[in-house]
Amino acid sequence: MAPAAPAHRQLSLTAFLMRHGHHVAAWRHPDTDLASPPFEVYRNVVQSAERACLDAVFLADSMALTGAPSLEPVTLLSALAAVTSRIGLIATATTTYNEPYTVARQFASLDSISNGRAGWNLVTSDNAAEAANFGRERHVDHTTRYARAREFHAVVDGLWQGFEKGAFVDDKAGGQLLDPSKVHRLDHRGEHFSVAGPLNVPPSPQGKPVLVQAGSSETGRALAAATADVVFTAQATLADAQAFYRDMKGRIAGHGRAPDSLRVMPGIFAVVGESAGQAQDKFAQLQGLIEPKAGLALLGRMIGNFDLSGYPLDGPLPELPVTQDGQRSRQQLLTALAQGENLSIRQLYERIAGGRGHFTVIGTAKQVADQMQAWFEEGAADGFNLMPPTLPGGLDDVLRLVVPELQRRGLFRTRYEGTTLRSHLGLR
Amino acid sequence: MAPAAPAHRQLSLTAFLMRHGHHVAAWRHPDTDLASPPFEVYRNVVQSAERACLDAVFLADSMALTGAPSLEPVTLLSALAAVTSRIGLIATATTTYNEPYTVARQFASLDSISNGRAGWNLVTSDNAAEAANFGRERHVDHTTRYARAREFHAVVDGLWQGFEKGAFVDDKAGGQLLDPSKVHRLDHRGEHFSVAGPLNVPPSPQGKPVLVQAGSSETGRALAAATADVVFTAQATLADAQAFYRDMKGRIAGHGRAPDSLRVMPGIFAVVGESAGQAQDKFAQLQGLIEPKAGLALLGRMIGNFDLSGYPLDGPLPELPVTQDGQRSRQQLLTALAQGENLSIRQLYERIAGGRGHFTVIGTAKQVADQMQAWFEEGAADGFNLMPPTLPGGLDDVLRLVVPELQRRGLFRTRYEGTTLRSHLGLR
Repeated sequence: MAPAAPAHRQLSLTAFLMRHGHHVAAWRHPDTDLASPPFEVYRNVVQSAERACLDAVFLADSMALTGAPSLEPVTLLSALAAVTSRIGLIATATTTYNEPYTVARQFASLDSISNGRAGWNLVTSDNAAEAANFGRERHVDHTTRYARAREFHAVVDGLWQGFEKGAFVDDKAGGQLLDPSKVHRLDHRGEHFSVAGPLNVPPSPQGKPVLVQAGSSETGRALAAATADVVFTAQATLADAQAFYRDMKGRIAGHGRAPDSLRVMPGIFAVVGESAGQAQDKFAQLQGLIEPKAGLALLGRMIGNFDLSGYPLDGPLPELPVTQDGQRSRQQLLTALAQGENLSIRQLYERIAGGRGHFTVIGTAKQVADQMQAWFEEGAADGFNLMPPTLPGGLDDVLRLVVPELQRRGLFRTRYEGTTLRSHLGLR
Repeated sequence: MAPAAPAHRQLSLTAFLMRHGHHVAAWRHPDTDLASPPFEVYRNVVQSAERACLDAVFLADSMALTGAPSLEPVTLLSALAAVTSRIGLIATATTTYNEPYTVARQFASLDSISNGRAGWNLVTSDNAAEAANFGRERHVDHTTRYARAREFHAVVDGLWQGFEKGAFVDDKAGGQLLDPSKVHRLDHRGEHFSVAGPLNVPPSPQGKPVLVQAGSSETGRALAAATADVVFTAQATLADAQAFYRDMKGRIAGHGRAPDSLRVMPGIFAVVGESAGQAQDKFAQLQGLIEPKAGLALLGRMIGNFDLSGYPLDGPLPELPVTQDGQRSRQQLLTALAQGENLSIRQLYERIAGGRGHFTVIGTAKQVADQMQAWFEEGAADGFNLMPPTLPGGLDDVLRLVVPELQRRGLFRTRYEGTTLRSHLGLR
């Protein structure tokens, strides 16, 4: 008999995987493997994460080439589903350049293939490079994007619910496969989509795939409060994270939702060493590998797609017009940071080269676990989205050093209790 | 050292997998497994096909619910890629309701994950049920659909060629990941699409994924002759298949292509038994399981989406208006068949309940192999797309009985020589 779930609250942990790791110079680190096929690297990483009992792995996405080429997330997670058995699999898919019937099919299929481990990170696309791959001169404006996203979600959610319990009769002798009275058309007609349904993929083993969101704007938060199971967020300080956490829990209460029906999970960029000094050395090694060109490109992207290559590296950030190309809140944050601490362009890109504005901790397993525990116990987080500096080494450090420390403190599971992602996350 | 490829010409064999098999009553057969998760059934089937050294498995697709719910093909094949090592993986994706940047990414990812085993069956979507899931009142007309398909293909093909050989420098010390002079934007601007590129997925291990087509109209044949590596086709008789084969080989010569640069592969619906009588009994058992409702629905769909439920089953096929809803050539074929042989509605749906107009052989392994050999040697086929009546049993019969017979005759490989689908098919 499986032991009962622990009576006390535990952390959720997901691993946010980027091709070579999150640090902008990760690919140059001796640890990263450029020679093996990408799938082999991911397979080893995800199997390690599963051995550590993580809730899920998570893949971001972009519909344009920014950085190293990688694999399309749903395709990749589906392959990973076949070589794992318990860990959740969360992929990003945009509502701006996809069709809801297609996305509903993909995630229902991933959920079926993985026996209930799929999650969908619903995003909108906000940059010109993606727009240019989908026949648009400019990215779609914020309001239209979110209106489309909201309707997109309603359609996908409706399609996922098209098969009532008992719809599959499977009566060979009687000649009835489906009970048509339990299979429902959607017949959605809205401003952005008309979708008849029903879906042509079997229903999700976990009821429906877990819904993740990460929008931080007012509109993004409102949509997440209405619909999401998990919110990923970038918060640099405990106070900011607490404010965000309070805000989101308040918003869901407004929708009549229980506090634990939404998991708030800030990203954490942790560089872990056997000693504090070793951790600092690891971080310094990565910082030393930043090519000015790569640093400038990252900063330019995060500040609203501006070309900074004409400005002196050791001079101040120039006055920039308010970006029309997404990333407005990130632009404000970084401009304020540069002005407040009087940072040069180089110092600013060095500051974001790892955690990109996320919670950053450099230290021993105990130091990292202390910080995580503080955020968890002081109303700032239900768990963390781990952002390993390099792959596989940067993740291995966390799994090998920090996770056991959290387990010793009773803050994280030592074995999976359930089989679905929804169950790992403690969601109904 | 690997033995050299055989000097003589050999068959290509692909397995065309449908959820429960090709016979309309397959799901009612004792052999089909309705209880296991679909992915488990597919995994066992594909691993069997790989043990038999088949070139590939093939999945059709529909963007609407017609028949049993199943899994989205790219997602499914990606999972299957992770549990196989040599067999090719061909998925259908429509050009009518997708975007080329997305399809290019998916198949490039599948190709990377499978180490060069991906194939794309390019289709257009021609029915109202699919249109209704993508915001359209009616399906797109034939001319527009093919114009879009042609441009869609050009974009995907261009995106796949965006990375020149040597584009990946992987120079950690020098700080250069990609050589920008070898990474090419596409900057396509056409009537249906504007796509900037480059693709954000690593280049295909097999140069590019194998391109499959199955259109039989004049426009469909013209597109296939210009672009395809493989053509699947429905041919009921040797004479028809020879005419089609000659036509396609003539067309590719017009494009300056060598005869063996296009593999022409008719579908074959084979019911195989230890004896001829046993094969007939197997077929009779399946025919006896056809529910009139299911037979009528299949016939109605294939004849251009007409509701035949109001007509007497044992009366003649009513006079039907020419369909405006795709399937026009199939409608002509079936109307002519019913009139020519004076078939009732019931007799007509029984006629198509298995092979749906494809080459149909019911007999021993020797009898089936004789027919395949005749088509192969008499200018009608470069190989066959196997359409198992049931899964897994109907495919197992072919793999266990027919394939060894073809191998004894030197007509089919006994081991894989290469690692890519392109290599299995003898394509450059």
